[in-house]
Amino acid sequence: MDTPTRARGGRRRKMADRANTEAPAREVNYRKLRNPFPVMSAVSDDELANIHTTALRTLEELGIRVLLPEARQLFKAGGARVDEASQMVWIGREMVDAAVATAPKSYEIKAGDTKRDLLFELGSMVWQPGGGAPHATDLVRGRRPGSLQDFREFTQIVQALDAIHMISAMTEPQDVPTHLRHYAFAEAQLTLSDKVPFVFARGTPQTLDSFEMISTIRGLSEDDFRAQPWTYTVINTNSPRQLDIPMSQGLIDFARWNQPSVITPFTLMGAMAPITPVGAMMLSHAEALAALTLTQLANAGAPVMYGTFTSNVDMKSGAPAFGTPEHFKASLIAGQLARMLGLPWRCASGSAANINDAQAANENQFAMWGCMLAGATLTIHAAGWLEGGLTVSFEKLITDTEVLNMMADMCRPTMASEADIAFEALREVDPGGHFFGCAHTMERYETEFYTPLVADWSNFGTWTERGSKDASTRATAMWQQIVAEDKRPAVDPERIDSLNAFIRRRTSEGGAPPES
Amino acid sequence: MDTPTRARGGRRRKMADRANTEAPAREVNYRKLRNPFPVMSAVSDDELANIHTTALRTLEELGIRVLLPEARQLFKAGGARVDEASQMVWIGREMVDAAVATAPKSYEIKAGDTKRDLLFELGSMVWQPGGGAPHATDLVRGRRPGSLQDFREFTQIVQALDAIHMISAMTEPQDVPTHLRHYAFAEAQLTLSDKVPFVFARGTPQTLDSFEMISTIRGLSEDDFRAQPWTYTVINTNSPRQLDIPMSQGLIDFARWNQPSVITPFTLMGAMAPITPVGAMMLSHAEALAALTLTQLANAGAPVMYGTFTSNVDMKSGAPAFGTPEHFKASLIAGQLARMLGLPWRCASGSAANINDAQAANENQFAMWGCMLAGATLTIHAAGWLEGGLTVSFEKLITDTEVLNMMADMCRPTMASEADIAFEALREVDPGGHFFGCAHTMERYETEFYTPLVADWSNFGTWTERGSKDASTRATAMWQQIVAEDKRPAVDPERIDSLNAFIRRRTSEGGAPPES
Repeated sequence: MDTPTRARGGRRRKMADRANTEAPAREVNYRKLRNPFPVMSAVSDDELANIHTTALRTLEELGIRVLLPEARQLFKAGGARVDEASQMVWIGREMVDAAVATAPKSYEIKAGDTKRDLLFELGSMVWQPGGGAPHATDLVRGRRPGSLQDFREFTQIVQALDAIHMISAMTEPQDVPTHLRHYAFAEAQLTLSDKVPFVFARGTPQTLDSFEMISTIRGLSEDDFRAQPWTYTVINTNSPRQLDIPMSQGLIDFARWNQPSVITPFTLMGAMAPITPVGAMMLSHAEALAALTLTQLANAGAPVMYGTFTSNVDMKSGAPAFGTPEHFKASLIAGQLARMLGLPWRCASGSAANINDAQAANENQFAMWGCMLAGATLTIHAAGWLEGGLTVSFEKLITDTEVLNMMADMCRPTMASEADIAFEALREVDPGGHFFGCAHTMERYETEFYTPLVADWSNFGTWTERGSKDASTRATAMWQQIVAEDKRPAVDPERIDSLNAFIRRRTSEGGAPPES
Repeated sequence: MDTPTRARGGRRRKMADRANTEAPAREVNYRKLRNPFPVMSAVSDDELANIHTTALRTLEELGIRVLLPEARQLFKAGGARVDEASQMVWIGREMVDAAVATAPKSYEIKAGDTKRDLLFELGSMVWQPGGGAPHATDLVRGRRPGSLQDFREFTQIVQALDAIHMISAMTEPQDVPTHLRHYAFAEAQLTLSDKVPFVFARGTPQTLDSFEMISTIRGLSEDDFRAQPWTYTVINTNSPRQLDIPMSQGLIDFARWNQPSVITPFTLMGAMAPITPVGAMMLSHAEALAALTLTQLANAGAPVMYGTFTSNVDMKSGAPAFGTPEHFKASLIAGQLARMLGLPWRCASGSAANINDAQAANENQFAMWGCMLAGATLTIHAAGWLEGGLTVSFEKLITDTEVLNMMADMCRPTMASEADIAFEALREVDPGGHFFGCAHTMERYETEFYTPLVADWSNFGTWTERGSKDASTRATAMWQQIVAEDKRPAVDPERIDSLNAFIRRRTSEGGAPPES
């Protein structure tokens, strides 16, 4: 009787021969996903209702400070009580109810290619890379302030990884002056990727410049652009209970142009929010509802995303922590609140580790599972975040994407036909034998299993012979290859010329400084 | 207005002062856990029924080869068709049904301390370290064949980590001759730990020696020992469809002595089992039911654990892989089958990585989530496994336990009283302010959050000043400290003397070689 070991060589050759002639590729589609995982609750329905009611009471009784006069005017016109001296706005629950009623429960954001279009509704599962980091790091060049080159390379990598569905503000291109940065930022996204691009809400002039650049590259009239979402921004409230000028302006501008704001109170328990998960989520919920209300006052029916980013700090040092049990619980509560509203919503993963080690992997994956079991529609910082978001790591972007790929792979149904259950295959193989070469295996071996991205399953001897490379080192080779290949989406060269002409003109006009 | 950054120093000092005087410790109990996560299914109820029916048909029509004559006699006496020439046994479904009916749905294994006793039933959540590895590795001494010293140190570490609930055969003490190894193996477990010990099923003489050593250290008569479970073994079938001599003997001996066998077909898809998750699980189920039937034929009502360890191999190299989507799906199917039977069951985590890097962390955690969402009662290899089980890593034992701690922490209910929801705390803090020093925070800051085991949440500057240590390096310091502290459970010195006297006597008698 053959042992599995003896059989392998022969079968491997046989399989390789076959692979060269008639290999059917495994069908994988990590692009448009529905969440296959069960949802988990952290609080009871009564407790959930109490959190919601307390958030409404917070908006009515304690109010929120809104720094932008135009936003206060919108709130006032919508029926809110406003005190101009203190900039405080008190929002009645009927206003919030009306806003939730007009906020769309489902919408699509169009990308540069229909296969990259993204549906946002409860049940969709969309992932973004780590965003907003001042630094970039990799094993070759070390940790440094993020540059345009870093942002461009991150964009190339994101474009190459199907399980990362849209572009985030991975790192800040700090070598570009702030009045011109949004041009370089948009140009990189629109020429190196056909995925949904990100726009910073840093004042109306930059926003409108960005909308025009997207319209140019997508070939859209202003009406086309306004007809549906083509981009998005992220709006962080200034917790607790404050909306600053650029964030308020962003909510208004994006709503008026029918583009979604991803509303994200960044409510670190014990720091900018109460120390309890339910307390922090109550504050986050109140702020998100206030911001959501502003979008609907600006343009009833405008797409918007409910959201939160709630984790805890280390109470000994004040340092933020991610991928903790409290982060997980906050995500679960946010999911319960979002399902109560019926709205698509964003959550966040992340890690506080300083390098791409076991801690970094564990925190990110633990936080991801919190988001998945919470039923998050959009999970930001799903790959690459180190140092609680101060750095995006090229290697971690790759190693975290392995986890995303495996989660995405769970969307494939488990085939369970009579043939899959394999009674006849058992008949083929004697007791103590093996299935390497049986017909049941030969029919399926090329397509049955997940193919790893960066994981190395070779044995210790082979792995040692190949240089004892850890996952991060292997990831370096992978992102370097992606960057070197420089695969770009097909874009009409005339549109690229128009984009460049627009950027030249606006640059000569002095650009657009950020507003604050 | 204070910024959070400015406030931190002062608050930190205030908290530290308070911590020195009146610190209430956070109450954590990782010892006796109920699974707080939702269960997930991979196949429909109809498909599940089909898998079960096909497994029964496999036992009836294809049969299983049983190498131990005594086991064949038991099967025959129970009504099975037996062919002595081929050693094949065909088992009718009514025999399987009867065995499932008498197998207990709930039982406890007693440890050396009641707080270490473990309940096994659907809903319990028990974790074991990686087991059965021929090698041990750490960052100081490198990778080497496992020794008694390694096993002793692993036992000390397992004893120190509450979220690891029982002892496994972490590594094989290969420097002890095989006829004496089980004495050293038991002595280490029984003197260095009060957690439930493991016994290898390597023939009746070694088993009975081990039972006697456990009885000696626990102060039990033979009747006391037989009255309930005090230890356990793991029984791997020789997939496909074969039960070898020591495994069959173990099932019989442990059942007769009322100690549980953890039945574990190790059914690697595409190698020892069909390539499909449902096919591999159908085979695993058939084998587990056959083994379970043997235990009940040997002693109806004996405690037993249903189980599986089903993952896939890399079809290019034949190398086993763990923490893959296929492993995850197999775990889910196993959970569905176990719930159908109503029996406690074991599942397994693991990693094929060669060092404790991001891959190692990600695979282990991914597989753990498969087990948790499958509702596994006992998860083996929950921490420390590298190289698909060829090595247990001292550092990975620590870094994986961080994930176990965080999962265990999810068992704490999310407190959601009016005070937790924190409306009054919001009233205390102005818009844009912070919660570091408010009364709501001060009342809770010492107990609200999870305290990390090995994660370092310090910022990049502090982390660099402290030597830029990655998680594995920090884990080294941690296990070295545990080993150096050498904290032992309180055991009556007379019992230890009796144990040593027994070992001396049996050694002088020639010990007990393993049987096969």
